[in-house]
This record gives sequence, C-alpha cells and structure tokens, in this order.
Amino acid sequence: MLLRGRPRALGAAALLLLLLIGFFLFGGDPDCELGSEREARRGGGDPGSIPGSPTPRVPPDGRPRSRGTAAFDVDPPADPGGHNSSDCLPPPPPPPKCELLQVAIVCAGHNSSRDVITLVKSLLFYRKNPLHLHLVTDAVARNILETLFHTWMVPAVQISFYDADELKPQVSWIPNKHYSGLYGLMKLVLPSALPPDLARVIVLDTDVTFASNIAELWALFAHFSDKQAIGLVENQSDWYLGNLWKNHRPWPALGRGFNTGVILLRLDRLRQAGWEQMWKLTAKRELLTLPATSLADQVWGRWRAVGAGSGPRCDATVSAQDIFNAIIKEHPWLVQPLPCMWNVQLSDHTLAERCYSEASDLKVIHWNSPKKLHVKNKHVESFRNLYLTFLEYNGNLLRRELFGCPCPPPPGAEQLQQALAQLEEQDACLEFRQQQLAVHRVHITFLPHKPPPPQPHDVTLVAQLSMERLQMLEALCRHWPGPMSLALYLTDAEAQQFLRFVETSAVLSARQDVAYHVVYREGSLYPINQLRNVALAQALTPYVFLSDIDFLPAYSLYSYLRASIEQLELGGKRKAALVVPAFETLHYRFSFPSSKAELLTLLDAGSLYTFRYHEWPQGHAPTDYARWREAQAPYRVQWAADYEPYVVVPRDCPRYDPRFVGFGWNKVAHIIELDAQEYELLVLPEAFTIHLPHAPSLDIIRFRSNPTYRDCVQALKDDFHQDLSRHYGAAALKYLTALQQPQGPV
Amino acid sequence: MLLRGRPRALGAAALLLLLLIGFFLFGGDPDCELGSEREARRGGGDPGSIPGSPTPRVPPDGRPRSRGTAAFDVDPPADPGGHNSSDCLPPPPPPPKCELLQVAIVCAGHNSSRDVITLVKSLLFYRKNPLHLHLVTDAVARNILETLFHTWMVPAVQISFYDADELKPQVSWIPNKHYSGLYGLMKLVLPSALPPDLARVIVLDTDVTFASNIAELWALFAHFSDKQAIGLVENQSDWYLGNLWKNHRPWPALGRGFNTGVILLRLDRLRQAGWEQMWKLTAKRELLTLPATSLADQVWGRWRAVGAGSGPRCDATVSAQDIFNAIIKEHPWLVQPLPCMWNVQLSDHTLAERCYSEASDLKVIHWNSPKKLHVKNKHVESFRNLYLTFLEYNGNLLRRELFGCPCPPPPGAEQLQQALAQLEEQDACLEFRQQQLAVHRVHITFLPHKPPPPQPHDVTLVAQLSMERLQMLEALCRHWPGPMSLALYLTDAEAQQFLRFVETSAVLSARQDVAYHVVYREGSLYPINQLRNVALAQALTPYVFLSDIDFLPAYSLYSYLRASIEQLELGGKRKAALVVPAFETLHYRFSFPSSKAELLTLLDAGSLYTFRYHEWPQGHAPTDYARWREAQAPYRVQWAADYEPYVVVPRDCPRYDPRFVGFGWNKVAHIIELDAQEYELLVLPEAFTIHLPHAPSLDIIRFRSNPTYRDCVQALKDDFHQDLSRHYGAAALKYLTALQQPQGPV
Repeated sequence: MLLRGRPRALGAAALLLLLLIGFFLFGGDPDCELGSEREARRGGGDPGSIPGSPTPRVPPDGRPRSRGTAAFDVDPPADPGGHNSSDCLPPPPPPPKCELLQVAIVCAGHNSSRDVITLVKSLLFYRKNPLHLHLVTDAVARNILETLFHTWMVPAVQISFYDADELKPQVSWIPNKHYSGLYGLMKLVLPSALPPDLARVIVLDTDVTFASNIAELWALFAHFSDKQAIGLVENQSDWYLGNLWKNHRPWPALGRGFNTGVILLRLDRLRQAGWEQMWKLTAKRELLTLPATSLADQVWGRWRAVGAGSGPRCDATVSAQDIFNAIIKEHPWLVQPLPCMWNVQLSDHTLAERCYSEASDLKVIHWNSPKKLHVKNKHVESFRNLYLTFLEYNGNLLRRELFGCPCPPPPGAEQLQQALAQLEEQDACLEFRQQQLAVHRVHITFLPHKPPPPQPHDVTLVAQLSMERLQMLEALCRHWPGPMSLALYLTDAEAQQFLRFVETSAVLSARQDVAYHVVYREGSLYPINQLRNVALAQALTPYVFLSDIDFLPAYSLYSYLRASIEQLELGGKRKAALVVPAFETLHYRFSFPSSKAELLTLLDAGSLYTFRYHEWPQGHAPTDYARWREAQAPYRVQWAADYEPYVVVPRDCPRYDPRFVGFGWNKVAHIIELDAQEYELLVLPEAFTIHLPHAPSLDIIRFRSNPTYRDCVQALKDDFHQDLSRHYGAAALKYLTALQQPQGPV
Repeated sequence: MLLRGRPRALGAAALLLLLLIGFFLFGGDPDCELGSEREARRGGGDPGSIPGSPTPRVPPDGRPRSRGTAAFDVDPPADPGGHNSSDCLPPPPPPPKCELLQVAIVCAGHNSSRDVITLVKSLLFYRKNPLHLHLVTDAVARNILETLFHTWMVPAVQISFYDADELKPQVSWIPNKHYSGLYGLMKLVLPSALPPDLARVIVLDTDVTFASNIAELWALFAHFSDKQAIGLVENQSDWYLGNLWKNHRPWPALGRGFNTGVILLRLDRLRQAGWEQMWKLTAKRELLTLPATSLADQVWGRWRAVGAGSGPRCDATVSAQDIFNAIIKEHPWLVQPLPCMWNVQLSDHTLAERCYSEASDLKVIHWNSPKKLHVKNKHVESFRNLYLTFLEYNGNLLRRELFGCPCPPPPGAEQLQQALAQLEEQDACLEFRQQQLAVHRVHITFLPHKPPPPQPHDVTLVAQLSMERLQMLEALCRHWPGPMSLALYLTDAEAQQFLRFVETSAVLSARQDVAYHVVYREGSLYPINQLRNVALAQALTPYVFLSDIDFLPAYSLYSYLRASIEQLELGGKRKAALVVPAFETLHYRFSFPSSKAELLTLLDAGSLYTFRYHEWPQGHAPTDYARWREAQAPYRVQWAADYEPYVVVPRDCPRYDPRFVGFGWNKVAHIIELDAQEYELLVLPEAFTIHLPHAPSLDIIRFRSNPTYRDCVQALKDDFHQDLSRHYGAAALKYLTALQQPQGPV
C-alpha cells in the first residue's frame, strides 16, 4: 500500500510545484517578493556556524523554513519580530491527527492558578489533539487545580502533578529577592523533574494566551536540526542589549536574546547533553563574575523595566530567562529560533508591533508586563479582547470530544453519559433529574485565602450565594469576624465581576479568612445542596455554622459559639447540633439589635418577627421561641416535621442531599438526616440570626406559580423518604408518620 | 523586483517538492496512502465530461485538489462526506492579507435576525480579513440589524442592505406553503439583486456556524475551472435519492445532490450564462412535470423529513435548494464541489459523521434540522457547544481591529477613541466618564413583537431593567395590558437566559405587544438614562408612561391614562406631563389595591407609604399627596428641587440626560428638562403606581458607602446645571437657586 501511494504523491507534489510557480508569476503579493529579495541579499546559514551571530531570524507567520534552508539574519541587532515576511511558503505538516501533545506549566498560589485556567481555556478552545498537561505546583495550586480538572471532565486531557516544593532545593541557591521567583526558576529543572521517557514538551508561562491550535506549535519540533534542543522566540524588547537605562547591565545573551514564555524542549537531547551540569555551571560562573554592585544595579534596572510599584509582583533577581540566554550565548547550536507570532510579547517596551502587523496570524500572546492587561500599548484593546474571550469563556463548553480520536473518557464521564441517556424526555421532572446529574466545575479558593490557625473550638460560617446576593457579603463580614467558607454559583464571566467586586471593596479585601469557592453554573435550577456541600467540604475548622446568605448573625455570635462549644464539650463526647434561633425583618434599613434584650424589644414592637412566622411557621416552631425568651442555658428540643433550624455542627456532619435542587425542602432533609443519626438538638439561649428582606428568587416564583414544579419537589421528597427507610429501617418510620400528618403550605 | 523574486520562489517550490517526497516516504500516515490508493483505482476526471456523474467527490479536509486534477468519484451513490482522506496536500494559498471578502445572507423577521447575529459572531471571531456583508432583509430584520451594526462598531466590516420585499415578485410565483418560504427562494435572485460589479460572493444560510476562518473558504474560488460558477457541498442525507420514504419523489438532483446552506457564487459568470432565464425555465418545467398528487406527497415527505410537529417551522413546498439541484443536474459543469467540512449538515437523517470523524478540522456547521439544537445526534453535544460559544459570546470583544489592514474605522469610532484617549487616568470619576462614553450594542425587538394598531391616545409603558429584576415582568404584564417598550441591560449570555425565561412563561409568551430591547453590558456602572432613551425611542404610540421596573401600576391605569389623555386634549394644544402618584409597600406578599379608596385605606393602616417617604420625601412632595386624597380632577403642581415623579408625556418628549450613570439624579434631571421646556405638570386624581420591595442595587450600595461615588454624582449635577444655563439662559436660574437651598440626603 505504501508503495502504491507514492507515485501519486510524487505527482501531487509536482503539481504543487507548478501551482507555486504559477502563484509567484501571477498571484504573488509584493510583500512576499520583497521578503524573498531581502533574503537573497542576506544569504542563509546555520546559526551554529556563525560565531557570535547575534539574532537568529525567522519569519513572522509561524512558517519557518525547512531544515535545510533555515535562513538567519546576520546583520547585528535585527528587527525583533522577524521583519521579513514569507507568507508564501506552506506551513509545516500538522502532527498526526490524534498525536498526544505534551505541555508543562509551573504554577504556584491562588492568583497564578486563575491565570493557568485562562491559559488552558484558550489552549483547549483551539486544540484538535489530545493533551497531557504536566503541572509543577505548590500545595495551594495543586489543591485548586486537582479539584478543577476532576470536575471539569474535559475529554482527551491528561493531567500530571509534580511537587514544586520537592524541586526547590535544586534552584534555591540562586539569589532571589522573592519567594515566587523560585517557581520561575523551575523551568530549568524540567528535564530531570518530568518523566524520563518524556522526550518533547512545550513549556508555557501562566501569562500566555493561545490564539491558535497548539498542534501548529508542536509541528515546529520537526524543524529542529539534530542537535537543537530548545525552541524559543526572540525577545521583543531591547532588555538584553543593555541600552534601556544607564548602568543597566543585563545577563549575557545572543543579541536581543530569547523570551522563555513559550519554549519547545527536546528533553531527551537536553538530558543527553548534560543539561543539569550545563545550566548550573553557567549560572554559577555568571553570578561570580557579576560584581555585587552590578547585581544590585541589575535588580534596580529590572525593577524599572517591569514597572516597579505598579502591582504586587516582584521579579526574581535572576530569572530562568537570564540563565537560558546565558547558556544559549555559550552554546548557540542548542537553540531553534521560532517565528515571532508564537510569543507576541506585550512587555512595557515591546517592539512586537512589527511582528503582529506584518503576519496575518497571531498565535500566542504573552502578557509579560507586570502591568499585565493595563500595559500601555496602542493595540492593547485588541489583545485584551482576545484574553477576555477566554477569561469569560464558559469552560463547560470545552467538554467537547475530539472527533475520531479514540481517547479514554475522563473518570466518571461514561457513567454520567449513561445516566443522562436513561432519562425520559417526556418526564415532567426532567429538568430536576438533569440538574441532579450535572457535574459542576468547581474552583475552590478562587481568591487568596489564609486558613485560620488551628483552634479546637473554632467555627466556620458556611453559606452559598449567586450574583444577586453579592451585596450581602460586606455586611456579613462585619457581623462575622471568623472564618467563612462560601460557595458562589457563577458563570465564568460573573466570576470575574465577583473578583472585581472583592478587589474594590475595602471590607472584603481586608479579609483573608473568607474562602470563596466558585461553582460554575450549568442547568436551570439552583443546585442549592450541591453548593452547600462544596462550602462545607472546604471548611477547615472543627465546627461549622450552616447558615444562609440572606441572614446576618448577631455581632457576638462567633465568639459566643466558640465559648458554647467549649462549655458544652461538644468535641468527642457529645453528638449535638446547636440551634441558632432565626428572626426576620421586613425593612432594609434597620438597626441591628446588639443584644438579646434589644432583639426582644424589637420583636415586641413588631419590627422583627420570628423567621417565616407568616408563611411557614413549622420550619422553626420546634425551636420554641417562647422558651428561648426566658432561657438562660441551652435546652434540648425534639425534631418535628418540616423543622429547618440554622445549626452549628462538627465539620464531619452528614452532607446535604444533593437531589434537592431549586426551591424546597433542601434544609429540612438535612435536619432529618441529623436527627436520624441521633444528633441532639440544643438551642443556644443567647444566639440569634436575622433574615434580611430581598425580592423572591426566580426559583421561589416558579415554585409558587408552577404546579409541575411543586409536584417534582414532592417526588424528590418521596424518593428521599424511600432512601431514608432503606438506610435507617424502622427508625425512619417516624419521619414518614410525621409526613402523613395534615400540614400547612410548603 | 518581481523578476528578482522568482528564482528564489522556484527554489522554494523545488524544496517543497523534496520535502513532500520525504514526507510520503518516511512520515506519511496510512490514511493518506489509503486515500491515494483509492483515488488511483478510481481515476480522475472533469465532472462535465462524465455524463450523469452522480456525486462529485472531494476530500473532507478543506483541501480540494488543484485545478488540473480534481478527482471525482464515479461510483454511484458515494459516501456523503467525501470519505477519502487527503490531509497530505497543502491547502490552497490564503487570499491576500487584506482582501475584502463578500458575504450575502437572506434574513427576515425577529428570530432569523437573532440567528444571523450568532452566525456573524462566529464569522467575525475567526476572520482575519475585511468583510462586506450583503443583507437581504425584510423591514423588521433591517430595522434590527441596522441598529445593531451601527452600535456594534466592528472595524473592517461594511454592511449593505437590500429590500427583500422588492425582490418578492421575482419568486412569488413558485408554490409555497408558507410566507417565510419566499425568503428562502431569494438566494436564486442574488445575481441580479447584488451590485452588478460584484463578481464573487459567499452565500450563507442563517443557521450555519463558522468554526474557522472564512478566508479559507473564499480561497476555494481559486479552484473553480473557467466555467464553474457555483461551489457547493454535497448533501449529507439521502433526501434526493428518494429512498427515505415510500412515495417520496424528490426533485431531480445529481446523486445525493448538493446542500445550499453554504454557496460560493461567481456572480459574474452566472450573469453571463443567463442565470435568470436558466433557473426560471428549469423551475417551471419541473413544476409542470410533477403531477399534483406527487407534489402533495412531496410536501408530506418533506414534512416528515424535517420533523413535522417538532417546532413552528413550516418548510416551503419548493426550496431554492430543489431548484439549484435541478439546474445542476442539467448543467453539471456549473458546479465546483466543495470539501464536506465546509457544510457539516446536522439534519435529522444526517450522514455527516463520516465527514467530521475523518477530517481533522471542522469548518462550518449547518443546523439544517428543524429541531435545530435539539436534533438527535450522538455528537450533538459537541456541536452545540460550538454554537453556544458564539450565542453567548460577548460581541463587544469582536470590536478588535485587523492588524496591518488599513481600513476606515466605523462611523464614530475615531471620535470615540479620541474622547477616551483624552480622559485622565488619575481622574477620580474616570469610571463615570468612561461609562458615559461607552457605545452599547443595541438589539431592538429581541423577541417577536407586533406593534399595536395606531390609536390616537395610546400609551406605551417605558422602563429598563437588568437580570435581577426579571421576576417583575409577569406581574407587570398582569397590571399593564397595553404596549410596553422595555430596555434590558444584559450580557450576551444573559440575553439567552432571558429568552428562555420568556419562552417558559405562559404570561409573557402570550404578549406580543411588549417590545424587549437588549442593550449589551459594558462598563461597571448602570447606564440608566441611556437605557431609558433606548426604550423611549422604540415606543410606537403617541404617548409614553415613563416608569421604573420595580413599580406596579394600578390595574386600571392603562385605560384611565388613555381616557385622561383624550379628555385633557393632550394632543397638539397642551404641552403637559401627567403625574402618576407613587407609593410603596415593604411587603412582598401584599394584596394590590383595586381602587383609590382601597389604596387610601392601606395608606391609613400603615401598610403603604407614599414613595420614599422615609428616605427622600422631596422626590415626590410636590405631587401633594394630601391634595390628591381629595382631588376629583387633574390639578397642576409646580416644579420644586429634586422632584422626580412618574409621568405620562408625548413620545417626542425630551430624552433623558445620558451623563447620569449609576445611581442618583437621573430622573430629577429629566423633570427639570421638562419644566424648562414648559411642560405643565398635571397630577391625575385616580392614577397610582406602587413600588415593590427589593434588595438595594449594587449601585445604591456604592452610592451610600463610597464618598467618591457621591462626589462624582455631584460633579455630574454641576455639569448638568452648567449646560442648562447655557441652553436656557436666565430661565434656568431657578434650578440653580433651588440647588442652593438646604437639602436633605440625596
């Protein structure tokens, strides 16, 4: 078969030749010919064969010349951005259809994790190949990204994690002003950190955005000569020329040097060439020869270059890029220059414009100014739009399969598909069943978060919300000075609005003990109990206060709860749920009672009510408000039908039943579960929390106006009771019996 | 220069030849060789030279063979989707970098306009070339799309409109079950309808989605032989084979026929070939030869094929596709078959899978099942995700320039850029100034809308809202049975949620006199007065009731207002604003008073208040509620500082001042403007409207908590007063004087 195919291929190639000739004679645009002409004047050559060749040159369009004719510019300091145009040559052949592409990224901390996700979204959007992501992370980023990818369930994406902290000793001897600088240096140790059988990898900085298919980048490996091991794009600034500031003495580099935001690495060749020894020797020698003052200068220079004072970022004294460039200067045969479009650098003094205004296609954008999206650049708006595209992109839409590539589905995906396929299209409660099956992408600790120091009686407030309750957060922070774990149900775009909301709020940005977990929206019903479970699972204190977002706790509640837990010895001995009595006000502007006595006065004056007194008294009746008025000590109450108090429980309490979505019965079922597991219900005499008014949610409106909706909630209740009987046997009888009693409105 | 370039080009081509040979010998994948082998067995040929050749064949990867060797399959009924793979050949050269590409789309009605916008978003996302869109529209679509593109301000996009109603007589003789079928037929008249100097155009159905750069499609014109004039993708179903149902007798076609969702048209050649006569002759002949019963059969068959009963769509008896296919059957030399990936047809009986599972790249998806996104297809989820990507995509992000293409900026864009560039980055009110300058994309009549029949005293309720007030709409519809014009401030994704909300609401979907105008979000402050102006400009009755979304009018208000307008002879003689007194309740569940008497009872009982009685009494004090209690006839009141009543005015009233964004003073300024223009303020004795409670908006929270925000609102007020003095001179003094008086809180 192979043989039979060849003559035809030769024929096709011959035809192509004819076509190309035709194109040049009749259809070629002047730019192409200018480029060819310029090249002809320059002549070509191997960078290795030209000692001191300052800046290897490549065309700007992602189409470097083939092995035998790689043309490099020999004029000293050339135009960064490879100003010769050669749109006329065909691109390298794409990699085989389903080839697995390898990508490595170093990532540490909360903010960097958010960046990586945006990068990965852009990557996934354009990719057509299976990917293997190698993530070198600290504990924080690993925790975030592991949960995220597990719940993202993107087909044909493998993830491997590598512990950055284990790699630290290999780079920590390099002078670094800042902790985070160390992570940047870890690119140097990838050849030894990644699996020994991994031969090729694309290494990416977290601040790059793809605008094209990464397979086209991968295809450039084919252009490496036998010795070349590192593919890099030239630096698009004059940094390494050392003429940006007075006394600016950069590390040695070939001409403008190379930028390490996007790297093609032949790991196998680097290992063979003794990379580890190579980079360490070079780094040590350079560090020794740089006089101390010069090093200080350089730090200062870099500070200025990266825009000191414009943000929290602090650059490393010595960067991986410095070391890469020093090595390349010494061993120029190592480097295969890549077309400038694969790393369009939007740094502060960028010279990238010549690259992107000439080539027809922009491939990767690199936000390598510390000002990031706020960098001064007359075209920044256009680049920003591309970045925002992926920042706000609904990541759920990336769960699309690769047609024709046989890849194992992500864990759980097959079962999910089967379960979804079994749903009846005619089922009146289809929407409920689909919502229950939805796997929501979860981004835990979306914003920087410092876990509270461990304390034996500490309590985390647990709640969930969507965009329309954001305005509750500041008040909640004022009322609850302790740790909180909040699940937010948001779209990707809303998550960014939320981020800006926190950043512009003095109250919120001052708090580091509030953990925000973003659960991405999918489906039409609010997955209330799934959200509660996410927030609950991320609480780090031994106790949790299970609240709702439209309640403000008494100012003293946090300290009072801790004291109560200690007094009641809630630890091992006693299995109890502490009830926090709930009230409500109908006024937005309302002066919050500072004590129980004040609360009782307001209650008597009719300014406050017990919660849902008018609509749903049975929800809180067992709390026994009359007894609470007089109580001086905690008192035990009995479960009764439809009871749904706000409680404090140990963190390992039963989870909420995720089948309850939308409005109705979601807390009631949880309290039944606590009672079935024999939690005592103890009402705290000085505790209270007050519900603030808000417009009814869309779910409650649907519940009230739509009989089918109510029927579906009833069906959920029935299912729940069946499961309860299965679980607890005769002990669950009382819940069923209670259900038979005549009831008020749900 | 041209000459100097050529030898080099020849060298490059020779090299390429060598490379290709190398690729086949060492790197080719077996699929390629299989394809080549199969082709070798088949042999090639010109479709024109094979009489009756049923299905011209093309490879699935967007890379047809070059002119001389176009290979076609001669086996009768071939695999749709062109199952031979030839990823091995390079794609045709892209069109010159900044070449203007021409696209024609036929579009009629509200729903089709929404579809076109999604299509255009996908097109713009991937395009790198300037585009000229030729839109053949009815009056509704033109109105919508003209406003949209005018406010969208996408660089390097020209729009031309053509009146579909003028073209109707040319196709209306063709039997059609349904009005909308006529629009489908208009593709046939494009050669005469489009400008005579337009030689090439890509014609698209509204239900296609791009997944790639349209320039690649345009490049396929280069493969047309000298005679070919129509580029089409083969049909990916057995429809034209006539074996789908018993008695199904389709129109004649070459094999499976071609699909007309994506067409490359050489208009110049069609004109030269006498296209108009050609298609009319063919259509008439076929219509004559089809016996009446067969035609009925066919209608039925098509009904079944398109999934009768699955949606509102009713297909035409004869489609443009039928006629195109009949012509091609007769004149096969006209057609250049296109690779299947350029029109992946997700019809009900699609055979497209072979196309998309083999090729590595999907170019255009065609939702040509009447079930659209709900079509049964095991891969539909993936296709849907691509569609949803653009449905929900923030269209503002497509306002990015084409680097390196000198295109005139869209009207107004340059002034906008200059104004934005003049803003001071350090200005504390920068956010306000940016928001004022924002040009919001506007999609008027987002949902189907029937304007009310003209009545001389009719009133439209005008209001604006964002997502968080959606739940007010049903109640509002119950309270106001007349026409409404509502501006909705939404993201693209929210607009889709809104659409679903209306579709699932029986109350809302029953109303066709409510016009919803989507204003797309941009910036951080709510552009309240810009929204009001959009809604106001779209009101079609002679009078408007300028309301807010959180108010419910008295049930009788609509008819009472019309009667009052008539009685007061508000038409030409009297320049007046009728005041509708405003009240508020603090309870969500509240029984709405059915008369003024009932309202007064509730007021006396303390269940209702006059609006903002506690926080901002001066806003409505001049209405004089005490007088209103007793009033039997309209009475005149005088303007006073901070007065902001809800009023009924002629549609040509002054617009709202768009400088007021966010919270504060936006209505006050409008009432001043009315007063300055000498509108009488007449309070109506039986009119009332009641504010329902809701949580405070984020803007009001910022106003209250942020002194800078308040300062900026103050600055806006000062600017406003300056302009007022400039406009009205001494007459505006009273507003400034009133401003000096001591005031309560804003």
